Amino acid sequence: MVAPMNEQFIYLKKDHHIAWLTLNRPDRKNALNIDMWRAIPDLVQQAENDPEIRILILCSAVPKIFCAGADISEFDLFMKDRDARDQNRAAIRAACLALEGFTGPTIAMIAGACIGGGCILALSCDLRFGDEKSRYGITPAKLGLVYGLSDTRRLLDQVGPAATRDILFSARIIGADKALSMGLVNEIYPVGSLEQEVRDYSDILLANSPHSLWEIKKLIARIQGGVREDDIVSEDIFLDAFDGADHKEGVEAFLTKRKPSY
Amino acid sequence: MVAPMNEQFIYLKKDHHIAWLTLNRPDRKNALNIDMWRAIPDLVQQAENDPEIRILILCSAVPKIFCAGADISEFDLFMKDRDARDQNRAAIRAACLALEGFTGPTIAMIAGACIGGGCILALSCDLRFGDEKSRYGITPAKLGLVYGLSDTRRLLDQVGPAATRDILFSARIIGADKALSMGLVNEIYPVGSLEQEVRDYSDILLANSPHSLWEIKKLIARIQGGVREDDIVSEDIFLDAFDGADHKEGVEAFLTKRKPSY
Amino acid sequence: MVAPMNEQFIYLKKDHHIAWLTLNRPDRKNALNIDMWRAIPDLVQQAENDPEIRILILCSAVPKIFCAGADISEFDLFMKDRDARDQNRAAIRAACLALEGFTGPTIAMIAGACIGGGCILALSCDLRFGDEKSRYGITPAKLGLVYGLSDTRRLLDQVGPAATRDILFSARIIGADKALSMGLVNEIYPVGSLEQEVRDYSDILLANSPHSLWEIKKLIARIQGGVREDDIVSEDIFLDAFDGADHKEGVEAFLTKRKPSY
Repeated sequence: MVAPMNEQFIYLKKDHHIAWLTLNRPDRKNALNIDMWRAIPDLVQQAENDPEIRILILCSAVPKIFCAGADISEFDLFMKDRDARDQNRAAIRAACLALEGFTGPTIAMIAGACIGGGCILALSCDLRFGDEKSRYGITPAKLGLVYGLSDTRRLLDQVGPAATRDILFSARIIGADKALSMGLVNEIYPVGSLEQEVRDYSDILLANSPHSLWEIKKLIARIQGGVREDDIVSEDIFLDAFDGADHKEGVEAFLTKRKPSY
Repeated sequence: MVAPMNEQFIYLKKDHHIAWLTLNRPDRKNALNIDMWRAIPDLVQQAENDPEIRILILCSAVPKIFCAGADISEFDLFMKDRDARDQNRAAIRAACLALEGFTGPTIAMIAGACIGGGCILALSCDLRFGDEKSRYGITPAKLGLVYGLSDTRRLLDQVGPAATRDILFSARIIGADKALSMGLVNEIYPVGSLEQEVRDYSDILLANSPHSLWEIKKLIARIQGGVREDDIVSEDIFLDAFDGADHKEGVEAFLTKRKPSY
Repeated sequence: MVAPMNEQFIYLKKDHHIAWLTLNRPDRKNALNIDMWRAIPDLVQQAENDPEIRILILCSAVPKIFCAGADISEFDLFMKDRDARDQNRAAIRAACLALEGFTGPTIAMIAGACIGGGCILALSCDLRFGDEKSRYGITPAKLGLVYGLSDTRRLLDQVGPAATRDILFSARIIGADKALSMGLVNEIYPVGSLEQEVRDYSDILLANSPHSLWEIKKLIARIQGGVREDDIVSEDIFLDAFDGADHKEGVEAFLTKRKPSY
């Protein structure tokens, strides 16, 4: 993995088993332009290719802001040029699919405002942790725009129909507590302790079997795709796991009261 | 739109961009009889036909009560006459489909008890706002009756399987706080400020693009109907919006720091 | 129904209209071995066959513990013998289907730890009530194992995708408050009052029409299986209920202001 260049608007920073996918455009509050969307699949793939990386965390290098949303300087282009907007949309979809498809767990670590495209990215992660000043809004209705079907589906799967309508119809800013009670985020932590909490949580994940996490993540995706009953695929994965190296290590560690080393 | 006659059990009151679909049967606590169910599709259509109307709010003209449920004076008829009960059921279904199909956002504004048919109607709206004394119950199990499949599905989509079973098995009355934590309502407001809160929220919706709201509402319905991935329909709607008058107005307003006028 | 033998690890205790399906393996904190899983379908069937039984409650005879999960003394066997693990998995699936398929309402009454297989069983019940010291965890990721598809689906239906991932990826122990806000349990009660609360709730259910509860339970299962619109099956069940003995009794009781006797 190449070393991050801090002048890049989005980059990957490796830290032991964690890849930090980092938004870094301070003068625009991390507003996402087409180049940033386009960079995401390759960065995710870099993390995927690194055998040491087991968790991907989406975060911001800019204090007190996660992502302000779309880049307003592109509005004019997208209004005039259908090809440009088509390419931008394709870049958004590819970025979300890449994040969603990462083999291991993905976490969005959200301090401050998480607006528009920021929510799209955060909802493509497995888990979302915010701080007490985090706030959330999805705002196409303010600009006469619509929201992508797959983006809306990710929101709907998470918060249900009435909260989805509230968020999208009103385009209002949702505070941290309301986001938590809606189910938009998993946990809210005090300002200043968010990163440590996310690191501690990551340590919990890293102590668990990567094989388990990969297979469970795929299993959840299958169920979300409509499979509701055990089938030969899921049963084989279930039964095969007992033959795996991770299970051997896990049982041995358990029986000898030591921590497993996956 | 005709002026409301206050002796009607259910009527439409127009107020600028809002149509207030109003339950008004004080001596029966707004219990819904077949004529009231039957009146709903036409009233919704009246609101639909009025080009000024952009929001429909379901409410009660009777203080401290939203709707007590079914009209007990009809019990005897429905028990004896299968045609009558069949017609009543058809009227309920048509009323729900009409409400659900309203082009713009629909809000149930719930002060006091919201029981049985009142919950059916409220769950056919996009959003539900209650006051601190609002309470909720669905009670067919008290009378040896069953609940309609589509009505149950609307409840299940909103609160999940265990809360659905709790509500329907127990037929118990759920208080405002529990209704909020279950996800049955979007927000709970202090008694006395509910109407102002709903008006303020409506102003937020009215400041947004009607085109956005219509398309987002249809999009959510498509996803609830089982479409989970972007397709040519959703992508065209997404991309076409950039050519729309609402987007032009929205961007212009944004760039010149004025409020858009949709 | 045979009288319970208290030396059994799992038994059925009849108490008027309630069958208490009771975990009773104090020296192993109710850890579930294959014989216990295998006993469940017959015990559920016994409750089903008894015409007096209308509610099944899953509980523990051991104070302050619901179920510690799998039986670690079986780990070695399952690792070495694929047939044994296959049989164990089949026993788990059969137990869940039996519980899920019980005609009347089922309640998991959870005091203390509810781990692994304990959660599988609890999630196969219609409703879950816990005490303030109840805590929840699903831990295959600690041992390199995967989770069954149908078990994961029951969890996902109840708590949504992000909480499902949190629970399964982290294998962490979830406290009572968090379990409530996730939707994993219906209600949390003070330690010591849980059983009385569950009895009171059961009395509410027993005061309602068994016909209503049976049909509503089947209806919810149909919707979870993918049926979203009223069809001739659901409409006939809805309309036929008005001809039933339970409805006659319910209306008569209502009109004469007495309690119905179902």
